[in-house]
Amino acid sequence: MFFKIIGKKISDLSPVQLLFFFYFIAVLGSTFILSMPIAHQKTADIAFIDIIFTAVSALSVTGLSTITIADTLSTTGIFMLAAILQLGAVGVMAIGTFIWILLGKKIGLKERRLIMTDQNMTNFAGMVHLIKQIFIVVLTIEFIGFIILGTYYLQYFPTASEAYLNGFFGAISATTNGGFDITGQSLIPFKDDYFVQFINMLLIIFGAIGYPVLIEVKEYMFTKNVDRNLLRFTLFTKVTTLTFFILIVVGTLLIMLLDSGNFFADKSWHEVLFYSLFQSVTTRSGGLSTMDVSQLTEENHLFMSFLMFIGASPSSAGGGIRTTTFALVVIFIVTYARGGKSIRIFNREVYEDDLLKAVTITLMAFIFVFSSVLIISVVEPFTISQIIFEVTSAFGTVGLSLGITSELTTFSKIVLMFLMFIGRVGIITFLFMFKDNKKSGKYHFPKEKMIIG
Amino acid sequence: MFFKIIGKKISDLSPVQLLFFFYFIAVLGSTFILSMPIAHQKTADIAFIDIIFTAVSALSVTGLSTITIADTLSTTGIFMLAAILQLGAVGVMAIGTFIWILLGKKIGLKERRLIMTDQNMTNFAGMVHLIKQIFIVVLTIEFIGFIILGTYYLQYFPTASEAYLNGFFGAISATTNGGFDITGQSLIPFKDDYFVQFINMLLIIFGAIGYPVLIEVKEYMFTKNVDRNLLRFTLFTKVTTLTFFILIVVGTLLIMLLDSGNFFADKSWHEVLFYSLFQSVTTRSGGLSTMDVSQLTEENHLFMSFLMFIGASPSSAGGGIRTTTFALVVIFIVTYARGGKSIRIFNREVYEDDLLKAVTITLMAFIFVFSSVLIISVVEPFTISQIIFEVTSAFGTVGLSLGITSELTTFSKIVLMFLMFIGRVGIITFLFMFKDNKKSGKYHFPKEKMIIG
Ligand SMILES: [K+]
Ligand SMILES: [K+]
Repeated sequence: MFFKIIGKKISDLSPVQLLFFFYFIAVLGSTFILSMPIAHQKTADIAFIDIIFTAVSALSVTGLSTITIADTLSTTGIFMLAAILQLGAVGVMAIGTFIWILLGKKIGLKERRLIMTDQNMTNFAGMVHLIKQIFIVVLTIEFIGFIILGTYYLQYFPTASEAYLNGFFGAISATTNGGFDITGQSLIPFKDDYFVQFINMLLIIFGAIGYPVLIEVKEYMFTKNVDRNLLRFTLFTKVTTLTFFILIVVGTLLIMLLDSGNFFADKSWHEVLFYSLFQSVTTRSGGLSTMDVSQLTEENHLFMSFLMFIGASPSSAGGGIRTTTFALVVIFIVTYARGGKSIRIFNREVYEDDLLKAVTITLMAFIFVFSSVLIISVVEPFTISQIIFEVTSAFGTVGLSLGITSELTTFSKIVLMFLMFIGRVGIITFLFMFKDNKKSGKYHFPKEKMIIG
Repeated sequence: MFFKIIGKKISDLSPVQLLFFFYFIAVLGSTFILSMPIAHQKTADIAFIDIIFTAVSALSVTGLSTITIADTLSTTGIFMLAAILQLGAVGVMAIGTFIWILLGKKIGLKERRLIMTDQNMTNFAGMVHLIKQIFIVVLTIEFIGFIILGTYYLQYFPTASEAYLNGFFGAISATTNGGFDITGQSLIPFKDDYFVQFINMLLIIFGAIGYPVLIEVKEYMFTKNVDRNLLRFTLFTKVTTLTFFILIVVGTLLIMLLDSGNFFADKSWHEVLFYSLFQSVTTRSGGLSTMDVSQLTEENHLFMSFLMFIGASPSSAGGGIRTTTFALVVIFIVTYARGGKSIRIFNREVYEDDLLKAVTITLMAFIFVFSSVLIISVVEPFTISQIIFEVTSAFGTVGLSLGITSELTTFSKIVLMFLMFIGRVGIITFLFMFKDNKKSGKYHFPKEKMIIG
């Protein structure tokens, strides 16, 4: 009887509310397993807020951490963390569906819609098919990454099991854009090993560029030659991929430039290139780093905050306003500056509705980030630019840190958890939660022109 | 022959380009008269960049200053500065028209359109009438302010001429929102004189609330009782006035709160109230202050930067994105979050075009401000929050300073001059300068939906 009522209540929820409900359950579950003694090293003593923080950070695949994983979690705990990252990356809902598929259950419209919201897809068709593909693609990438990194790490670690454990966790942390590390200092131990950095960048990009892109590329690659000309990449794939790589290139150049007189002053050209490139790639949402980013200049921190605010592509393992949103905002501004003359990209026009959605997301994200910075700055002794960095890192679910997150008060940690959550599910999904489903009477009032600027 | 060609070239310019041309001439003229020896005290030695900076700051009625007026300008120079403020506040174009009116010249459509752009008015009708009214209203307010302040200052100054000189310059500086001072320390000498503060706040509000509002209120007040019911305030006046006062109240409360443990910790309730209220009012665009704002907390600086970014109402003596723009952006976000359901304010709907204009202005302003902060932070040793403060102060043509403007390099001073100019003429006007006048073929490409968030 009791469960029937609960079940009835749950089925009354809208897809978005249901998604939030499942995320909530996932946070509870993750917190529970991470607080079990078996997950900890014997000497470790972790505060409860830090366990929840780690759970939220892992589920939103952010990687901001108030504890040092290497010093606190046991090997079992590390495997648990890897599983939570996996759950967070592919999506709580996708996993649920996958289990249903395995059990041979028929998937109804409501469940399909649920996944649609989680992955921000706009058409119903082929959704189940898509989820299967996501899993195959992600697991394949992770497995290849694990084999390559694990084998390569044999030279660095005393035992094969240590090498492969590091390869395993490293591959998952990079591909899911989790950004956690079990070395205790991210990828800094590999700051001179460009092979490790290259593999990690590839894995981060695979995780951040968006599943639809991966699947379109996969279909393109594995379709026979004769059919290839019939395939075309969608506008979404073209725009998001182009924006993604423009951001990486511009990011690399500016990070290089802004620290040319400081951190990069005494480095050789290849060190400068790899430091800049890796840190640019990681702001897309990876979170791993090959250096202590707090050593960069304050202006570089501000610029990287901007990159992290944009974050990854939609339907990926990342967060932020997303690359497409950024691209559409640029298109919106150019369109309006040209007096509303529509713009074509790749011989297509975008819908005005999509432009408005992108603008709304950006403005709301800015309000969230600005308010969070202001609130946190009241209770913390850190500078505004330090706080901007941590806040955008949380919102973009990036996980880079100037080292202040572990010193924050419980209040600020809660604000960051909130941001990681919003950044991960996306502002539009978040807005939909409060959306009034009732149809409006469309009663219009007289309009009146206003003086604006 | 030569002048004919120049004249021909000028008449080929679009209204906005012509406006820029006149501003350019005004900057040249102001720089010229301020660099004359008669404008300086004998001991003063001012660099040329500082003279241009003062000219641009005065013409844009910002009040940011790289020199101390009291130590460098002669009495003649002070009168020149007052004249430049007057020119900047009422608008270069309005003054030009006023001279034409005085000379009895007929004003053609092109000249009218020129003023329209300068005052951001959207209808041609009654433009000449409006300019006359602006002058009458502004001069009346300034004259009353001058008499009140000058007479009241007799108790503070040794001679009547000093008292009335201070009253004269103070009234002009407050009403035009110029924000310059000849005391050498703004209104700090009057930090315990609430009467002086009250008069100055009134004058600042009159200058920043927008001429259309003043004129509507004036018409409402001086129309006979029987006609009053026929008059109604425009939507613009209602929205801008409401937003203006909400910002002042919220500003006062938050400034109070953010420094309750710091600057206000040892102050009495009336000191706290007047310090907060005055500093909130002055961020609308006044720029005068009753305290050294650098003593406030960093979070208060960030909050005040937000207030200054918004700035004054349109068609006023102020800058920034303007109060109406801010109000419409809020309406835009709420509208979209409600799924595009239109919103009524004061039983009217706003045009979607106006909402889009407001959003474009805000996004572009953010890009300008962010880029300026980043560029300046590269060449200056100051913190990001200090630079954000000076940059938004310039863009909002407010003129508050943490005291670093005088220490900036020439490069940063040029960036600030650019921002003061854009902030004063408004981003939309600035955009129009580059607008392609040619009609587009309206050839449409196929549209394609995109995944956004
Ligand atoms: K991350
Ligand atoms: K000012």
